[in-house]
Amino acid sequence: MRIGEMNWMQVESYLQVDDRCVLPLGSTEQHAYLSLSVDSILSERVAAEAAEPLGVPVFPALSYGLTPYFKDFPGTISLRMETYLHILQDMLDSVYRSGFRRILLCNGHGGNAPAGAFAMEWMADHPDASVRFHNWWSAPKTWAAVQVTDKVASHASWMENFPWTRLAHVTAPEVQKPMTDLELLRLQNPAGVRRMLGDGNYGGFYQRDDAEMLAIWSVAVAETRALLEGPWA
Amino acid sequence: MRIGEMNWMQVESYLQVDDRCVLPLGSTEQHAYLSLSVDSILSERVAAEAAEPLGVPVFPALSYGLTPYFKDFPGTISLRMETYLHILQDMLDSVYRSGFRRILLCNGHGGNAPAGAFAMEWMADHPDASVRFHNWWSAPKTWAAVQVTDKVASHASWMENFPWTRLAHVTAPEVQKPMTDLELLRLQNPAGVRRMLGDGNYGGFYQRDDAEMLAIWSVAVAETRALLEGPWA
Amino acid sequence: MRIGEMNWMQVESYLQVDDRCVLPLGSTEQHAYLSLSVDSILSERVAAEAAEPLGVPVFPALSYGLTPYFKDFPGTISLRMETYLHILQDMLDSVYRSGFRRILLCNGHGGNAPAGAFAMEWMADHPDASVRFHNWWSAPKTWAAVQVTDKVASHASWMENFPWTRLAHVTAPEVQKPMTDLELLRLQNPAGVRRMLGDGNYGGFYQRDDAEMLAIWSVAVAETRALLEGPWA
Amino acid sequence: MRIGEMNWMQVESYLQVDDRCVLPLGSTEQHAYLSLSVDSILSERVAAEAAEPLGVPVFPALSYGLTPYFKDFPGTISLRMETYLHILQDMLDSVYRSGFRRILLCNGHGGNAPAGAFAMEWMADHPDASVRFHNWWSAPKTWAAVQVTDKVASHASWMENFPWTRLAHVTAPEVQKPMTDLELLRLQNPAGVRRMLGDGNYGGFYQRDDAEMLAIWSVAVAETRALLEGPWA
Amino acid sequence: MRIGEMNWMQVESYLQVDDRCVLPLGSTEQHAYLSLSVDSILSERVAAEAAEPLGVPVFPALSYGLTPYFKDFPGTISLRMETYLHILQDMLDSVYRSGFRRILLCNGHGGNAPAGAFAMEWMADHPDASVRFHNWWSAPKTWAAVQVTDKVASHASWMENFPWTRLAHVTAPEVQKPMTDLELLRLQNPAGVRRMLGDGNYGGFYQRDDAEMLAIWSVAVAETRALLEGPWA
Amino acid sequence: MRIGEMNWMQVESYLQVDDRCVLPLGSTEQHAYLSLSVDSILSERVAAEAAEPLGVPVFPALSYGLTPYFKDFPGTISLRMETYLHILQDMLDSVYRSGFRRILLCNGHGGNAPAGAFAMEWMADHPDASVRFHNWWSAPKTWAAVQVTDKVASHASWMENFPWTRLAHVTAPEVQKPMTDLELLRLQNPAGVRRMLGDGNYGGFYQRDDAEMLAIWSVAVAETRALLEGPWA
Repeated sequence: MRIGEMNWMQVESYLQVDDRCVLPLGSTEQHAYLSLSVDSILSERVAAEAAEPLGVPVFPALSYGLTPYFKDFPGTISLRMETYLHILQDMLDSVYRSGFRRILLCNGHGGNAPAGAFAMEWMADHPDASVRFHNWWSAPKTWAAVQVTDKVASHASWMENFPWTRLAHVTAPEVQKPMTDLELLRLQNPAGVRRMLGDGNYGGFYQRDDAEMLAIWSVAVAETRALLEGPWA
Repeated sequence: MRIGEMNWMQVESYLQVDDRCVLPLGSTEQHAYLSLSVDSILSERVAAEAAEPLGVPVFPALSYGLTPYFKDFPGTISLRMETYLHILQDMLDSVYRSGFRRILLCNGHGGNAPAGAFAMEWMADHPDASVRFHNWWSAPKTWAAVQVTDKVASHASWMENFPWTRLAHVTAPEVQKPMTDLELLRLQNPAGVRRMLGDGNYGGFYQRDDAEMLAIWSVAVAETRALLEGPWA
Repeated sequence: MRIGEMNWMQVESYLQVDDRCVLPLGSTEQHAYLSLSVDSILSERVAAEAAEPLGVPVFPALSYGLTPYFKDFPGTISLRMETYLHILQDMLDSVYRSGFRRILLCNGHGGNAPAGAFAMEWMADHPDASVRFHNWWSAPKTWAAVQVTDKVASHASWMENFPWTRLAHVTAPEVQKPMTDLELLRLQNPAGVRRMLGDGNYGGFYQRDDAEMLAIWSVAVAETRALLEGPWA
Repeated sequence: MRIGEMNWMQVESYLQVDDRCVLPLGSTEQHAYLSLSVDSILSERVAAEAAEPLGVPVFPALSYGLTPYFKDFPGTISLRMETYLHILQDMLDSVYRSGFRRILLCNGHGGNAPAGAFAMEWMADHPDASVRFHNWWSAPKTWAAVQVTDKVASHASWMENFPWTRLAHVTAPEVQKPMTDLELLRLQNPAGVRRMLGDGNYGGFYQRDDAEMLAIWSVAVAETRALLEGPWA
Repeated sequence: MRIGEMNWMQVESYLQVDDRCVLPLGSTEQHAYLSLSVDSILSERVAAEAAEPLGVPVFPALSYGLTPYFKDFPGTISLRMETYLHILQDMLDSVYRSGFRRILLCNGHGGNAPAGAFAMEWMADHPDASVRFHNWWSAPKTWAAVQVTDKVASHASWMENFPWTRLAHVTAPEVQKPMTDLELLRLQNPAGVRRMLGDGNYGGFYQRDDAEMLAIWSVAVAETRALLEGPWA
Repeated sequence: MRIGEMNWMQVESYLQVDDRCVLPLGSTEQHAYLSLSVDSILSERVAAEAAEPLGVPVFPALSYGLTPYFKDFPGTISLRMETYLHILQDMLDSVYRSGFRRILLCNGHGGNAPAGAFAMEWMADHPDASVRFHNWWSAPKTWAAVQVTDKVASHASWMENFPWTRLAHVTAPEVQKPMTDLELLRLQNPAGVRRMLGDGNYGGFYQRDDAEMLAIWSVAVAETRALLEGPWA
């Protein structure tokens, strides 16, 4: 259940019987022809659908993340890593104070990976809590579903193009973009990243059939739900 | 226009002809019987409606703010002030790099006031940009509209109870709660704050007629839009 | 009693019977024709006079504060907000360790307002202590006394011109400066602030009769003393 | 060439003709029966052997890294992530000031992965430099060589047991330890990690034949050298 | 000239012809029977007297410094080292922006020594400025004058007992306290420091004849003035 | 015993019977014709030889320190003071968690002096531990041995030229360099420091007879060992 659809009294009641919650981690960054909010939309939505039948509260997505390499695509906002650690610290400390002890970080953006490392540090300071870092799109079953559909899948390609991330009145190209050399990409400054990527898609078609997308989505929801169910530490 | 409904190419086009944007500042905190997301919902929505006819982009609300005094109401998340300054720094730096130069911080939570002070510091470091800090609910015309409606208005009372912040299936009391002694409240630790506030409303009715609410809202939208129109520095 | 007139043994004795103290918050910044130390002088002096009959210790004013907008007036020193939070943290932690539990932050500079917000955060971490943030010059009774005297009163105008803040051999203009547009002022970078302000006075006469000043002062001392007397949380 | 075998004049001469260098990233942490310095020894040594024929300077390994989960194994030192970012910032800034522009971070410890993310942030601030983050042991060719030798290979197992990391007078068990459930491990606090791991080996034999080890080593040296040779951005 | 006796216009005029200033560094800490402000009083006063005939501005003493070991003497305030570096950074940045380029840090407290190390870091970032760190009481000539007067001299002993640091109505012991074992003292926690020190004097008489004191003082003033005169870098 | 020659089980056994350890503090910086690692080599080696007969573990030298003034000598790496404090905090916290309570910081570089001040702050937070800061080369007996050998001794001169710090194939000048004016040196920016120092030696011969060096070394090892033996607080 989304926190925005709860008041504090309902959270207090919930905490009498359960101690799980989800913190979705998003980003505001270029996704080629798609919404700048793709990663926030997807991480919050997959979490909300996964948590719904369990009654687990899902906090609002943190809309900003780590994406320095996309700085030359206008509209992108990137936090410093140090800032990001502080936010995670404060968010985890706050839900811990509320009484949550099993916390799923449902991440929607590859660049946010240091959040997983930070979770280990935070757990060492809070030995009675457990934090699970989850990249929803690259978890084993979801990734397998993507690969079965089309092996050429990447950032800002069809695999992020859902009915809820594509924009009205924007038509994406119908070609299959060749994959970018990712190892070379990682050596670039932001100008080089923009030069190599052009429209921002790393490689693959820009859109596929919605039936395929919904099939992948249902795998992702189920896989995320299974993690919420446990086991936890 | 909400950034979530734009892609980077559209932002780039916009920046050819304009350099204004809005960063809404929210909070996830107790609002008595209302949604924990009241401040995020309202700050983003008033900004989006104000900006719509001007075509000015509105970034996703920062869903977390400064609210240490509400820590004992479960579901509340409070960032440290130091963390908050870092986020503001990074967000302002990022939109500045994109090319924005006139930035409205549309704030929905009184506790976030230090963001206004920080804006002064940031401007001293970026002399070709101008940042305006705007508490949408207490701006002169909006506050006047509130006062005309009912002088007993406060945090989590009717004045924050809009169709888009109240919860389905939750019925608020029909009494007018007496105003809390705010000076005494500010001397309390979180336990004392909870003890003094009870359900969290600072004082006043919990709900009023929607026609009154929509009238206030339209004042707020117009007042926010006027700030976007200028003058700027 | 000023801490500079006490030794540690006297503080230890005092703490056997009382736990109140005052931390005055000043600033070193332009005050037009007046001393650069106006805010430090006044915050420490009003605190010392208020505390005298109560025997409450008054620490030395923190001579530096938050004033980025005055950076283009030579002689002004501005701390970063992050720095300021750290100082307040350390000062509060230190007096707490000494045994003080009721602490008045007697502030002399509007730009230091984030200290009040920080006090809320610090109290959440120290639930057995209470911190009161007090802008001595704008507290209700003192502000009323100023308004009764002359409604055009502001930074660096007559309302800060006391025998102990004016400079020998400096003669201030005898005109009443029109009030600056404060809303426009807040959108300026430091160069714009200096351009708008000229000599630094925001508006009003530069000096009034000392009898009027001493009357205001006695209200301020009494109002500050009343806060020390309580109630506290 | 190790920096410890150079003086500043030699570095200055080198910088006339080349701008590459290596910063090895180590850790001081439990490695079961092996040296607590395994990750520092290996990262510095593989870098030094790789760089030798190219004449590229190799700085001393940073002997401390990110390893909060091993805090309950005595002798382990773990830096906070925030600290680590500051060190990387200062080290990169310093070699940049010396004149280096192509910098290989040769990492010996999985937990140091956030250094790779930080490199992206730093490059965005230094667009004329390129930083490559390299996990020497899991790079494609080296990892393939490990897998061909024995698929059950992990932290503190045979794959880290070289003549230069094993201890005199310490005899390791001759059994093949079953692999630990890594997903469950990541949910543990330090006490849980120690409980699950016992001696610290994640799984696999404790030692294999040195001929096998030297074969893997030569692959690793060659693979690291190839990265130094480029291409760079 | 004390900054508190100047306005910004006078500082601006001064900067047309000179670029020197003094930042006195004090401390609020136990000094046995003497004022808790000894180090602030002395550092600001010696600077003001030294600077007077040169017309060099002297900023208000920073009243708080580094003194963690005295935390168990009530009334002592100790800043964290990290805080202190930030203050120095901001103060130096501010006077640099005003136009000062030759800055004397006139220090009154041994524990503030890291300010001298920080000055080196700051100068590396501001190559057209020069900062001199000066411990006024232990500079060669002043220290020689102390030694000639009485070799048993230390913190809180006679050597800090001036007419402007001793307290009315407090009578100090007339004995010569034996010197504390300083090496052992440095290994103590605050409770151990208090236990070893008793009243806080490290060793020596508590008071000597004022003629002796004024003779030492005039040496200190002259020595400080000579540093202001140069040479500078 | 060097930690690199121990595994965690051996450290655990040691901690059953003792709680002392050594953290050597080095630097990577110009040392004229000598190795850039002089300070790391010497601090770790003197600690290891001193600790050997006592069985006290010696952690790997922290290879990087505070040396902003040498930034214009290529190959020098300087950490910011703030970074350095964080590292010391984390290292001390980590060994404390392992169970160490008497910790010798064996320092090899004058610029690292703030580590000694930080140790006082850390001890105030950990009252059951004791930290001793030791500049091995300037401790009383070692410095006396240096002075007896040759009074003109300084950074990068003969007094740092040991068989284990000089470089193969590098021949140092045979002259006695006149001492640099250290007071003037401290006022310089990095460019000025390089200009004044030339090759980097502060003054004195570049090399002396190894018999003399080994005699000094044995004094240093004995003096360092004596500190390990105590007394401690």
